[in-house]
Amino acid sequence: MEEVQNKQVIFRNFITGLPKETDMELRTSKLSLKVAEGCRALIVKNLFLSCDPYMRGRMREFYGSYIPPFQPGAVIEGFGISKVVESDHPNFQVGDIVTGMTGWEEYSLIEKPDRLRKIDPRGLPLSYYLGLLGMPGFTAYAGFYEVCSPQKGEFAFVSAASGAVGQLVGQLAKLHGCYVVGSAGSKEKVDLLKNKFGFDEAFNYKVESDLNAALRRYFPQGIDIYFDNVGGTMLDAALLNMRDHGRIAICGMISQQSLSSTEGVYNLYSVIMRRVKVQGFLQSDYLHLYPQFTEAIINYFKEGKIVYVEDMNEGLESGPSAFVRLFSGKNVGKQVVRVAHE
Amino acid sequence: MEEVQNKQVIFRNFITGLPKETDMELRTSKLSLKVAEGCRALIVKNLFLSCDPYMRGRMREFYGSYIPPFQPGAVIEGFGISKVVESDHPNFQVGDIVTGMTGWEEYSLIEKPDRLRKIDPRGLPLSYYLGLLGMPGFTAYAGFYEVCSPQKGEFAFVSAASGAVGQLVGQLAKLHGCYVVGSAGSKEKVDLLKNKFGFDEAFNYKVESDLNAALRRYFPQGIDIYFDNVGGTMLDAALLNMRDHGRIAICGMISQQSLSSTEGVYNLYSVIMRRVKVQGFLQSDYLHLYPQFTEAIINYFKEGKIVYVEDMNEGLESGPSAFVRLFSGKNVGKQVVRVAHE
Repeated sequence: MEEVQNKQVIFRNFITGLPKETDMELRTSKLSLKVAEGCRALIVKNLFLSCDPYMRGRMREFYGSYIPPFQPGAVIEGFGISKVVESDHPNFQVGDIVTGMTGWEEYSLIEKPDRLRKIDPRGLPLSYYLGLLGMPGFTAYAGFYEVCSPQKGEFAFVSAASGAVGQLVGQLAKLHGCYVVGSAGSKEKVDLLKNKFGFDEAFNYKVESDLNAALRRYFPQGIDIYFDNVGGTMLDAALLNMRDHGRIAICGMISQQSLSSTEGVYNLYSVIMRRVKVQGFLQSDYLHLYPQFTEAIINYFKEGKIVYVEDMNEGLESGPSAFVRLFSGKNVGKQVVRVAHE
Repeated sequence: MEEVQNKQVIFRNFITGLPKETDMELRTSKLSLKVAEGCRALIVKNLFLSCDPYMRGRMREFYGSYIPPFQPGAVIEGFGISKVVESDHPNFQVGDIVTGMTGWEEYSLIEKPDRLRKIDPRGLPLSYYLGLLGMPGFTAYAGFYEVCSPQKGEFAFVSAASGAVGQLVGQLAKLHGCYVVGSAGSKEKVDLLKNKFGFDEAFNYKVESDLNAALRRYFPQGIDIYFDNVGGTMLDAALLNMRDHGRIAICGMISQQSLSSTEGVYNLYSVIMRRVKVQGFLQSDYLHLYPQFTEAIINYFKEGKIVYVEDMNEGLESGPSAFVRLFSGKNVGKQVVRVAHE
């Protein structure tokens, strides 16, 4: 029975504030690359791992969410792209490329592979199936079309706009005929928004002393659609700048994830005067749209109508720092860890 | 030319905190009961005046709202029931009973009567056309059916539940087959909710030290529909108790109207996990439903399926105190001022 040394990233213990690299540690254990007959399990070799803000929620000891917390002492879980190296499941063959929940480790035993999806990359980089064509991209697609009910000519604002979700929201909004402004946290990201993703305008929220004034400047006629990836003070400022019958899609609230007590939102009263809809959503409610999403995005990409930027980190060892950088906004684009070349 | 002494309630000046009686003053001026030929104006004798929370918004010097502020030194305006005593307008005859915007005074000159509506009371008390069959009743009707998208068997929560809007929301929700709980600010109001309006449960929010715990107690399975008349801490507590795909209709936020800086709402992040829709609305967006509203409510009332409670105040002089009592919650039911018997 072949056995390998398996490097892993372990979750140490529940946290309250911002995630730190020391909340995770590297460990090496042994893993047999064989599975018992009849168990329907797989062994996969992990190629890419996804760093996503929602994972912060799994670092709290809170059991009321749609997904349970990580277990202290166990391997971190997340979305990944993996290659099947052993299979006792009729739907999966050795060599298949799959995506779904896996472990932050070189090899993972997948006991219940039914929720994995096989990937035919169709000429796109494999790692894009964690971002543009994965959960973040689908969040952008479902949130923009299903929650924001966009109309041509409307004024759209996207926060965390260069992130895994925001960059696609902005490009879809442009393709839909909206006027699009994005906010991000550095000059480099603002340049990216304007010059690579084709946003009409973009600003660095960190240099704005008054977010309300900034939004008034970029949206003198007000905002029809706010795709909110951050919550907090940016949401408060947007609430003051919405147009009649505006829509706010609440998606991530990354600014609030690490606060032990969240910031208040003070301007909700303005939803009355402006008849604004504030809608929280999870992409998992829209999975019936996944096939049309994949087709649409692959076509747009091949036609050169959308682009995607990744922040690629090399090696499993880079996982903890890559994850932590999400929360300081140091990543530029979709944060991915490459564990192995195919 | 007949001239009368016309008692009036004058708005003194813009305010920042809670309205006080001294923000208004009584004055008597003279009014001719004749209008010039060709001016299409009316003179009306005011019978009932309505005290509504939105009027607080007109006491601020803020011009960005859907309705302009009151003018310091001028008569307070509001919804009223009036009798036409002089008319140069082809649609109105002396003796007609009308409702719409009028002045807080014994007689009003209505220069542009086109927005007044003639009333056939159809056996209901005239004053009900300010509450049950007026703007507050229509707010309840449009908000419940159009914004809350109610389903039979759902769990509905109404705050300020004995007020002009809340009492009808709760009764409509019961008629729709919902389980309905109301909150109010006194034992007397709680008794009214349970014994007169037929709410399944009701509680006095002033004796609850933990509103989140109170809602968990009354809604162990969570809330599908929250009809929010108050905002602030009650909204925050409700956000923690919503069920998946819950809906929150934001209507009044009376608790926030008098705060120079509003309280924060801290639990908005829960709209993501629970996929909650928070929708601000104004009844004026639904005026096409007014005829069906009137028919439905009059029928329910005549069949004994709904009741309505008013807090009737006698005499124009009682106007300032009646208005101020809205904001301390001292009124029980729809706050109305009777200016004259017909």
